[in-house]
Amino acid sequence: MCMITLLTDFGTADGFAAAMKGVMLAAAPDARILDASHEIPPHDVRAGAWALRHYAPLFPPETIHVAVVDPGVGSSRKALLIRADRQWFIGPDNGLFSWVLREARSARAFVLRSDLRRVRAVGSTFDGRDLFAVAAGALASGKAWRSLVSGSTRPMRFSWPTPKSMPNGIRGKIIHIDRFGNAISNIPTARIPANGQIEISCNHLKIREIKRTYSEACRGEAIAVCESTGLLEIAVVEGNASIQHQISIGDAVIVVCR
Amino acid sequence: MCMITLLTDFGTADGFAAAMKGVMLAAAPDARILDASHEIPPHDVRAGAWALRHYAPLFPPETIHVAVVDPGVGSSRKALLIRADRQWFIGPDNGLFSWVLREARSARAFVLRSDLRRVRAVGSTFDGRDLFAVAAGALASGKAWRSLVSGSTRPMRFSWPTPKSMPNGIRGKIIHIDRFGNAISNIPTARIPANGQIEISCNHLKIREIKRTYSEACRGEAIAVCESTGLLEIAVVEGNASIQHQISIGDAVIVVCR
Amino acid sequence: MCMITLLTDFGTADGFAAAMKGVMLAAAPDARILDASHEIPPHDVRAGAWALRHYAPLFPPETIHVAVVDPGVGSSRKALLIRADRQWFIGPDNGLFSWVLREARSARAFVLRSDLRRVRAVGSTFDGRDLFAVAAGALASGKAWRSLVSGSTRPMRFSWPTPKSMPNGIRGKIIHIDRFGNAISNIPTARIPANGQIEISCNHLKIREIKRTYSEACRGEAIAVCESTGLLEIAVVEGNASIQHQISIGDAVIVVCR
Repeated sequence: MCMITLLTDFGTADGFAAAMKGVMLAAAPDARILDASHEIPPHDVRAGAWALRHYAPLFPPETIHVAVVDPGVGSSRKALLIRADRQWFIGPDNGLFSWVLREARSARAFVLRSDLRRVRAVGSTFDGRDLFAVAAGALASGKAWRSLVSGSTRPMRFSWPTPKSMPNGIRGKIIHIDRFGNAISNIPTARIPANGQIEISCNHLKIREIKRTYSEACRGEAIAVCESTGLLEIAVVEGNASIQHQISIGDAVIVVCR
Repeated sequence: MCMITLLTDFGTADGFAAAMKGVMLAAAPDARILDASHEIPPHDVRAGAWALRHYAPLFPPETIHVAVVDPGVGSSRKALLIRADRQWFIGPDNGLFSWVLREARSARAFVLRSDLRRVRAVGSTFDGRDLFAVAAGALASGKAWRSLVSGSTRPMRFSWPTPKSMPNGIRGKIIHIDRFGNAISNIPTARIPANGQIEISCNHLKIREIKRTYSEACRGEAIAVCESTGLLEIAVVEGNASIQHQISIGDAVIVVCR
Repeated sequence: MCMITLLTDFGTADGFAAAMKGVMLAAAPDARILDASHEIPPHDVRAGAWALRHYAPLFPPETIHVAVVDPGVGSSRKALLIRADRQWFIGPDNGLFSWVLREARSARAFVLRSDLRRVRAVGSTFDGRDLFAVAAGALASGKAWRSLVSGSTRPMRFSWPTPKSMPNGIRGKIIHIDRFGNAISNIPTARIPANGQIEISCNHLKIREIKRTYSEACRGEAIAVCESTGLLEIAVVEGNASIQHQISIGDAVIVVCR
């Protein structure tokens, strides 16, 4: 029984995501489909890449992760089948797998054969249904992966900003705002000395320590914590740091160690 | 192993959709439930019918499609079991299955027996849980479909506006706005001559060709494409045509061929 | 084949809910995961408790209900495994299981062992992934439940406001607003005499009878109905009572019987 996860920016109300499920299950009736998300903001490839990073490595070996955030659908952008750390990834070659590739111990990428495309496909605007779901269904049904690809490739990879060391600390940037308004920086907390005074600045906020968890401060207080993948996060306890302190993706975060 | 898809306008936060899942799985523990959508706009039967059209035909034979957008719950509107193209459809008789019935090669419709209703049902406002989920669970558990119905019926069907031929072209209407703000008309692109000059008008927009896909134009440009079921669609590349050009359901779309 | 339902306030776009699915399936590959909701309003433990009440009792015996609305993550609040009416419940000890416990015929609660925590867990902000999903995966994979807990406990329970009898009727409060804007009170309709004149007041609204269902009144009319768990509900037919009549949680509802 094969597991397939599905991530898109389709929402659900138009039936697009369900159409992909139908195509996959028609080919591989025993496959088990797990919704990861259909609420990636429209066309936001980076947000999709961020989400993938959080769940893909936790699934069992041989899981097929299908991800479609695809503003360039129908263009010359390639369609990918990636083998990384004993799992499969299927989707457009537009950077969506950047984080996964950056953190994988080993990865090889291949171009999906264009003749996999659904014979009865109408239009050229829905590769999710007409190509990616077909490929995932074929793989899940036991087809040899080599029969699905036409050659290897080097996938497009985003460069996320990397934190810079300074004489007395680190300078980074906010790279994601989550559902709770938590602002997540690109600074690994492991790079911040555990003892000694620190001062974290983000916009007008000055924060003097890293709490272990949200409940170590009072409701409404702005704090720093180590988020669940090890990055420095600015949060407001039971509030919304992004809204309450106007923090956006790209804002500078400076950690000064004394 | 029976597949059940589920479409509602319930959202998920109240637990209504999950309640339906519980009822179905209590009757048919082996059934596999696939969420189609719970984000149909409240009471918007037409939007539900549109979504169903996109995914239902792609699922395997014998799939049970349960759909509940049901502003008339508890009234004298009938409860339906439909057999169409070797699949099952269960839901209220309010037009929700109009598109599916219009495109099915063969279909027969029956009235669900009212004594299927959950014995412990409280109130008369939740047929999704108390009748439709019960019927789907019974069917999925192997009960004979004839034992679930009390007779055949002619389901209510919406009339969607149909495009009109003009001496020099076609006049249609926008019939759906999707998650990306794409405005989809009722004009099949197959009815537009592939060669020769055309001019597509929608509100103030004038578009002079049908692109193959979004990426054949620049970001922000308004274009026409053939959407994924063959209809003429007005889109803005990586934008939102509905918002940026004030296009709504019902707006006229005129294609003039020269 | 074990069933696991999943309720969170995580949304889906960050991949948090999918991360929990990955952890559970890595431990129990045969488990079947049913999404209940990920759209509980952030930090709204009461809304989560309300939703749980609507679906949990409908699932088959031995279902594992995982629920994570957890503003106090990482604090000294306990982590729970509850056995109630032959089902399992896993989540934080913050009142999330109040309604379930109130309505269960029998229930026992235990504290999850803290050494269940994922060995490679980073940070202390995501017990959903690092503790609750681990416990659910262990239970689903057949581990003895006693090996997962360190002792019994009395779970925290919210007190919802209870309706008060008056000489000539009942005084209650709105305790939930649902997706459709229906305002649900804490007054069981069973406590309102079925015959005789009544007057229901909520803010400026005066309603003189309880309809059987929405379709017994005209579109736009404010009505009272018996909602699907037996409580008195104020609704607007095909409208939104909460928005159109400014009804909020906590507002008084008075039923006068003449």
